[in-house]
Amino acid sequence: MKGESFFSEKIKAALESDPPGSWIPNLPDKCIRLSSGYPDPMLVPVNELKSAVNRLLNEEQDLPLHYSGSPRMGKLQEQIRERLLVRGIAVSGEELLITAGACQAIDLVARIFLDDETVIALESPTYMEALEIFKNYTQHFICIPVDEDGLQTARLEEILEERKQKGLTLPKLLYTIPTFQNPTGVTMSTERRQHVLELAAKYNFLIIEDDAYGELVFEKSPLSLKAMDQEGRVLHIGSLSKVVAPGMRIGWIAGKGEWITALAWFKKDLDHPFAQAAMSVFLETTNFDERLKILKNTYQEKCKVMLSALEQHLPESVSWYVPKGGYFIWIKIPGADTSQLLTQALSAGVSFIPGKYFFLDQNEGTEFLRLSFSYSDKKDMIKGIELLGKVIETNSKR
Amino acid sequence: MKGESFFSEKIKAALESDPPGSWIPNLPDKCIRLSSGYPDPMLVPVNELKSAVNRLLNEEQDLPLHYSGSPRMGKLQEQIRERLLVRGIAVSGEELLITAGACQAIDLVARIFLDDETVIALESPTYMEALEIFKNYTQHFICIPVDEDGLQTARLEEILEERKQKGLTLPKLLYTIPTFQNPTGVTMSTERRQHVLELAAKYNFLIIEDDAYGELVFEKSPLSLKAMDQEGRVLHIGSLSKVVAPGMRIGWIAGKGEWITALAWFKKDLDHPFAQAAMSVFLETTNFDERLKILKNTYQEKCKVMLSALEQHLPESVSWYVPKGGYFIWIKIPGADTSQLLTQALSAGVSFIPGKYFFLDQNEGTEFLRLSFSYSDKKDMIKGIELLGKVIETNSKR
Repeated sequence: MKGESFFSEKIKAALESDPPGSWIPNLPDKCIRLSSGYPDPMLVPVNELKSAVNRLLNEEQDLPLHYSGSPRMGKLQEQIRERLLVRGIAVSGEELLITAGACQAIDLVARIFLDDETVIALESPTYMEALEIFKNYTQHFICIPVDEDGLQTARLEEILEERKQKGLTLPKLLYTIPTFQNPTGVTMSTERRQHVLELAAKYNFLIIEDDAYGELVFEKSPLSLKAMDQEGRVLHIGSLSKVVAPGMRIGWIAGKGEWITALAWFKKDLDHPFAQAAMSVFLETTNFDERLKILKNTYQEKCKVMLSALEQHLPESVSWYVPKGGYFIWIKIPGADTSQLLTQALSAGVSFIPGKYFFLDQNEGTEFLRLSFSYSDKKDMIKGIELLGKVIETNSKR
Repeated sequence: MKGESFFSEKIKAALESDPPGSWIPNLPDKCIRLSSGYPDPMLVPVNELKSAVNRLLNEEQDLPLHYSGSPRMGKLQEQIRERLLVRGIAVSGEELLITAGACQAIDLVARIFLDDETVIALESPTYMEALEIFKNYTQHFICIPVDEDGLQTARLEEILEERKQKGLTLPKLLYTIPTFQNPTGVTMSTERRQHVLELAAKYNFLIIEDDAYGELVFEKSPLSLKAMDQEGRVLHIGSLSKVVAPGMRIGWIAGKGEWITALAWFKKDLDHPFAQAAMSVFLETTNFDERLKILKNTYQEKCKVMLSALEQHLPESVSWYVPKGGYFIWIKIPGADTSQLLTQALSAGVSFIPGKYFFLDQNEGTEFLRLSFSYSDKKDMIKGIELLGKVIETNSKR
């Protein structure tokens, strides 16, 4: 009996185009992890979350340990709605669904909107997990390049108009990370935000706004697409992974009530009652604005340190965008193959994510790599960039 | 803009055949919950889980609060493998995937094996959440009736042979809960287990064995299908929801390595690192066999109490299977419409699950209802059955 023969046709195709083994190699134990999009370990509120769990279980006993039952699951939803309101996003209780992180939200969106033949527009490059999730549902993508002002909406308009003229299927969804994009760190300008909303209305598509990094702003950032959305075309995805702790797996999606009802219906029991209730206690007992200030200061400082190390240790030919928030710096090394470079970097003791994983056509990503300034401490970070600089130089001399 | 017009065709069909509003009504606050498939609140190890979380965070600090990082995530996998070994199921590390509860495991199985046209065989009645999940992926089902010895494998054989003769598509998967089935409480006999494995080999299908209740055995139960599986055709799904706490969302799936690799690949970031690591500490510090003894004794005693209350308070015409483990008793009330009955029962202060939710063709379920003896305390349970008896009698006189 051949086990593979049982796979569905779609999964066979997905496994062939993108076999599990082709993924980023495991990191050696001693390695400076400039690859990890994790929060700074010092900013993970370990003791506060411990207290939250203790208080929760003392007060509610077994309630949060059942499928549902803790009144704090509903409370968490209210708390998230309050935080969204601060950012200009007003949604009712019927318009917000708590999810197990942003990835579950993206997966649910794919599930309710995508057919095999659905066309979806993506930024290029884009968040690799989102790309992988969408590839489980459709093979029809339109990739729109990104520059330092984010998604190139003029290019998007050209493509849409061309497709319309030719009678080709128009995209049903656009997935975008407008603020401190993963992986490039760039932010879509207000003009382009306005433009993309106009395009959505004109060409009748929905916008999935992934805002996982939106609160980690160093100076200031434009309004979120959802806050500018007059027509109700934006589904706004958020997460506490970057501002509290990813291991708690708390995310959400906000949008029209009819969509939220359908998303909830397909989420079923894939909920996490205990984590939701514990997070609600944490938020109850935390001054979140104060917390955000500390996060911003820390990450802005770490970003500066990384930028200055890049200036110091990387060859002249290497370039990058200067981020205004978030976790990432996107590096271009002309002529490089960053997948090969990674093997050498790992031997030297530093990791990054090769650019190819963020592109639908992986060939487009060979000269790029993503660095994260969020996780490593400053000393390690400087050391890591120094090692990376040496690897790049050695490599370019070959 | 009509929001619904954006839904995928498959979801439109699913929402039409099974609109969210048609689901079981919310329970009033004061209600004896004979509907809830929750563990007994006294058996949820609240203090032990609290200690586990404290110990975990003291020892590992931020590690379990990232996407991955806690060594205990790997440890949990080993601990589950050890528990499976006790039950005659020997699997390697590559053959077991930890999931966010059994539902995620079922959803992942559906995802990697089902195409739109795939035929799947189900017990009738079956676990309603599994039915809902499968309905998101295919509309082609073969429903095999269940009796007091479980799935009627002779009937399954007839159907398979008939389909084969007629050149109809044969099922790719059979989903079964062989031990203490949800909702009927019945257990598949050893002979039928042997038979179904033979049929799987002869007609080339896979068996999804949902074993969520398998450890809650009052006297003894047959070997699991996976333990009897010579050909590697069984995917074994388990869960700690019924024996520890559902809110922790820890389940698993065991099977051929190539399937586990694909399942893991499609699970992506939909993991729960914190809950997994905390559960590992709990298992480390718990005598699980002792715990199981207490669970068995408690549930067996509660089952007896419910059975004797049924004898005492329900009309002669009402019948049920006597379960040998698990959480449920399946009741038949000839001529009743149990959905209507539920409205009256809720007014009277007692809940149950109407039978129709466990059937693909809901019309088949009108005379049945599922009672759970796991959650309510004995006094409430007796009172609840008394109330139910009155509702049934009032209703039959109309």
